[in-house]
Amino acid sequence: MATTEGALIASVNRGMKTLREAGEVTTKIFFDGMARAPVFKFKSIRDAHDFVKWVYSSMEKIREVAESTTSHGKLKDVQVFSLANNVWLRLVFETGDAMGMNMATLASEEVCRYIEENFRGAKCIAVSGNMCSDKKQSMINSVFGRGKTVSAEITIPKEVVEKDLHTTAEQIHEVNLRKNWLGSARAGNIFQFNAHFANIIAAIFLATGQDMAQVVESSSGYTWTEVRDGDLYVSVTLTSLEVGTVGGGTRLPTQREALSIMGVEGSGNPPGANAKKFAEIIAAAVLAGELNLLAALANKELGRAHKRLGRNIKA
Amino acid sequence: MATTEGALIASVNRGMKTLREAGEVTTKIFFDGMARAPVFKFKSIRDAHDFVKWVYSSMEKIREVAESTTSHGKLKDVQVFSLANNVWLRLVFETGDAMGMNMATLASEEVCRYIEENFRGAKCIAVSGNMCSDKKQSMINSVFGRGKTVSAEITIPKEVVEKDLHTTAEQIHEVNLRKNWLGSARAGNIFQFNAHFANIIAAIFLATGQDMAQVVESSSGYTWTEVRDGDLYVSVTLTSLEVGTVGGGTRLPTQREALSIMGVEGSGNPPGANAKKFAEIIAAAVLAGELNLLAALANKELGRAHKRLGRNIKA
Amino acid sequence: MATTEGALIASVNRGMKTLREAGEVTTKIFFDGMARAPVFKFKSIRDAHDFVKWVYSSMEKIREVAESTTSHGKLKDVQVFSLANNVWLRLVFETGDAMGMNMATLASEEVCRYIEENFRGAKCIAVSGNMCSDKKQSMINSVFGRGKTVSAEITIPKEVVEKDLHTTAEQIHEVNLRKNWLGSARAGNIFQFNAHFANIIAAIFLATGQDMAQVVESSSGYTWTEVRDGDLYVSVTLTSLEVGTVGGGTRLPTQREALSIMGVEGSGNPPGANAKKFAEIIAAAVLAGELNLLAALANKELGRAHKRLGRNIKA
Amino acid sequence: MATTEGALIASVNRGMKTLREAGEVTTKIFFDGMARAPVFKFKSIRDAHDFVKWVYSSMEKIREVAESTTSHGKLKDVQVFSLANNVWLRLVFETGDAMGMNMATLASEEVCRYIEENFRGAKCIAVSGNMCSDKKQSMINSVFGRGKTVSAEITIPKEVVEKDLHTTAEQIHEVNLRKNWLGSARAGNIFQFNAHFANIIAAIFLATGQDMAQVVESSSGYTWTEVRDGDLYVSVTLTSLEVGTVGGGTRLPTQREALSIMGVEGSGNPPGANAKKFAEIIAAAVLAGELNLLAALANKELGRAHKRLGRNIKA
Repeated sequence: MATTEGALIASVNRGMKTLREAGEVTTKIFFDGMARAPVFKFKSIRDAHDFVKWVYSSMEKIREVAESTTSHGKLKDVQVFSLANNVWLRLVFETGDAMGMNMATLASEEVCRYIEENFRGAKCIAVSGNMCSDKKQSMINSVFGRGKTVSAEITIPKEVVEKDLHTTAEQIHEVNLRKNWLGSARAGNIFQFNAHFANIIAAIFLATGQDMAQVVESSSGYTWTEVRDGDLYVSVTLTSLEVGTVGGGTRLPTQREALSIMGVEGSGNPPGANAKKFAEIIAAAVLAGELNLLAALANKELGRAHKRLGRNIKA
Repeated sequence: MATTEGALIASVNRGMKTLREAGEVTTKIFFDGMARAPVFKFKSIRDAHDFVKWVYSSMEKIREVAESTTSHGKLKDVQVFSLANNVWLRLVFETGDAMGMNMATLASEEVCRYIEENFRGAKCIAVSGNMCSDKKQSMINSVFGRGKTVSAEITIPKEVVEKDLHTTAEQIHEVNLRKNWLGSARAGNIFQFNAHFANIIAAIFLATGQDMAQVVESSSGYTWTEVRDGDLYVSVTLTSLEVGTVGGGTRLPTQREALSIMGVEGSGNPPGANAKKFAEIIAAAVLAGELNLLAALANKELGRAHKRLGRNIKA
Repeated sequence: MATTEGALIASVNRGMKTLREAGEVTTKIFFDGMARAPVFKFKSIRDAHDFVKWVYSSMEKIREVAESTTSHGKLKDVQVFSLANNVWLRLVFETGDAMGMNMATLASEEVCRYIEENFRGAKCIAVSGNMCSDKKQSMINSVFGRGKTVSAEITIPKEVVEKDLHTTAEQIHEVNLRKNWLGSARAGNIFQFNAHFANIIAAIFLATGQDMAQVVESSSGYTWTEVRDGDLYVSVTLTSLEVGTVGGGTRLPTQREALSIMGVEGSGNPPGANAKKFAEIIAAAVLAGELNLLAALANKELGRAHKRLGRNIKA
Repeated sequence: MATTEGALIASVNRGMKTLREAGEVTTKIFFDGMARAPVFKFKSIRDAHDFVKWVYSSMEKIREVAESTTSHGKLKDVQVFSLANNVWLRLVFETGDAMGMNMATLASEEVCRYIEENFRGAKCIAVSGNMCSDKKQSMINSVFGRGKTVSAEITIPKEVVEKDLHTTAEQIHEVNLRKNWLGSARAGNIFQFNAHFANIIAAIFLATGQDMAQVVESSSGYTWTEVRDGDLYVSVTLTSLEVGTVGGGTRLPTQREALSIMGVEGSGNPPGANAKKFAEIIAAAVLAGELNLLAALANKELGRAHKRLGRNIKA
């Protein structure tokens, strides 16, 4: 993790220590795919409607055109949306260990060219029509996922909560509900029912050569807790975590080394395995960071931690 | 700007060149203030209702308590929200040239202590109750602002649009409407009716020692265009740009130097002047980046630019 | 239309008159389906993940179970979402001329029973897990549609705009952009980039025996305008219009008569044809209402209209 | 209550019976005010910025102008928002026992006239700039309130929950969390963390002559539950309930009678008292409806209730 915030490292470390004592973190990937969504303009809704029908009947050809631009990308899905005389195709790709935006953009440009040549009256206004949605928190990403949708969970025995975190499962659950759920709902933080996913995501992205602007949507997600006979069940769900272990900034030496230490550098076997494992590691780190901040708020240590470690944990 | 994305630097540079040829960029700050929002729990809505009345009648004392923790921070506003038996106080501070989260948190902790001691039955569940909202895109930040709310604008003569950007005002306006407005509305990108604010924000934040996790809400905002007799009016509005020129990562040598080159390093005269000027510079850079990407989409140069500069501009 | 607001009738009538003079309104249905989304709880994300896989492999059986409860309903789609250890199945049904909530609920209850009996550890917490979403404005309904997604459009010649509406295409377009798009974005009206869909929907729902609580999400949608050589292109898109021509309040004599006058009373041939035609009629009426209010705002007649007709058109 | 849904009446009645056995419902009003928000266009953000300063320095005059149009309305607040070269003034009025839209619109039109005459370059594009927001669910209404913001609560003894509702506090709390909070967050029902406020609101609005299109935003709000030593604490918060006891449809005989039975017909003493009391009665009815539906889901009676009462309770 790369950060200028001393307390953040300490926060994740303490959380990690608690997770180790509590047992094993489970992580699961529920979705994997990178999206690009060109927008097409038509003269009328009549033409837009005809186009939608044409798209559904041309899926095989669209797939062929899209995949002609890439050796390992696969077109998984084409999602179709309209608003007045505009139609968006949200093209979703499997991109292996790459984060995949380049691959998705090049393939989408080819699809745009094909459509303009083969459907009279379709005009591609932008290869990115903002329904992708890249570098934006978005309901569309939350609903469908973008990059990886990944969850992590653990149940922490009552004794560990008390000894390590100096609080109780009940108190942490209460902080989670009133801060992360009621507070976020009341504020309209509609994609982030969490405490500080962004802190952990930003630090890991910086250390591993990810696209820093994608911290925006990669920080979307939910923290969920339950009290189970005095033990604490805690879970995080990240809806659109966009990461890669090949390409872009991962090629720089220090960043490459950071990935290597985690055992996820370069191409995985099978392809995509490294990026998936990396996403699961991030989810576990986010779980540690959430747990520790909720505990700190529950036991009001936050104020003291600031003074000792020189800077605030903010969220 | 610090980025691994070659095309992004080129994008902002080309945009900047166009702005220089077009004339002067106007920038205006519409709001300045840093917020922290503790959440208090009560036994009943009756108690919560009494508390709200007590808060309104105790404003002077709350201000005094808050400001006792800081030599230059000022409490500007206390915004009050309730949901069932919970009440949030969104405490808004003037924080001079500092981004201000530390100051706001320490002051808020003191307010929490004062309230728990002076209003029977108030329990502070968390000094951050997620209505702040820190490191989260949020309607509350969009409505009220957090950090700076800043706009930048320019009118680009028809000839400059055509010669420099190889397109027309009409085409750029059309891309802006169908991509940034219709696309964002349809996708539920509800805080980002823009193309790629996040790219420019992330690169500048990295270069100048800002908090990278605050790229999230700092990227919120709107791009607006008009065609004026063939000329292009283009404007950006950033609702919650959180920046400082003192404290945190701005103390590191390289980052300090980057601020110094822009003439905004350290404390301003009067206090706050440097942070405000810095926010205006960022708004102008964001304007350049938006202009250039919209133009590239309008004239379909995007594909060619990728290949030439080695990587995609993503948004 | 049933309303106590005199100006509203006049508004839609004037809009209708303009549409008639301008030519033919085009309407198109882009989606048709009614959704119900039970939520299931699991012990762990591991179990939730297993369940998701099981659902995908059990689709044929789920369809069979769902359709066993209804003679004409068809299960169109099963959409799967998870958050921590919870999974929602959004079951989407074709329901012919009925609005379809009863049918969808009964079928969903049967699916819940089947799942609890056949997947160990699945507990159905509620047959409606709020991802349906019934009687709520919702991104999920906006993205996928619920009931009908329907658009209507017309191009109004410059002369008709001037003679009938006493304004210009340019002025109406400007009101639409600054009020319905910028205003709604700034306010967080994220499902209603429109002026007053709700007025027209409520009046027609009341007159025709629809469920008045479904005015909420049925009023979601977008108004889009373009200036085309001085003519006005205007279009409305309703994302989740929930209507039926059989069942519920449509059986009452007055309401039945209202449907009959429009030629859409009772079952259509083929089944569903009447409900679709009814949705298209509503879209055309909404188009008329939007057009007239935008024109009234553009030419500032609104104030005078109030005084003449005794009550405000509100939106 | 007026509805064609038999089960709904039964639902609220059963909830009411439970509330009566449990003790007294507490209700509290946290906000009261009706808003109208004209949008003004300027040539530049420079002019918009000057205008904002002018507005803050002209508050007394604006108040005088606004209040000149009404004998009992008071201007409570002027909220100022900008986006590019556009400025909205959200004018908030005390409107006594009237719902208040007419009063607010007439006063706002007068303010628009005054501003266009007194601030060179201000052009009022629409007296309603969609930041009001009328007949739209909206973050601005949720944050600031519109109409009344009202909460209701009760604690139901364990024995009553078991005897009357045939379930437990724990089970109802679990349904509320997983359906109304997790489900709504996951679906993007961002203004309605509730089960079926809309059902109760629509039925009461219809019976009492309220504006049926305002069911949309009046249904916004939150249901919150807690388990307290086996007892059930349950609370509803309606953020923007728009009701009146004078004017509009309340003048019709049947509707007037319905208000009269509740003891809130016509003008209150002091003015506004009847509308406030009416809002509190609605909040209590909504509490009853939520309680009953959550209980029905918790004990899975819903299916049986349908068959007995002839139609589904939908939400």
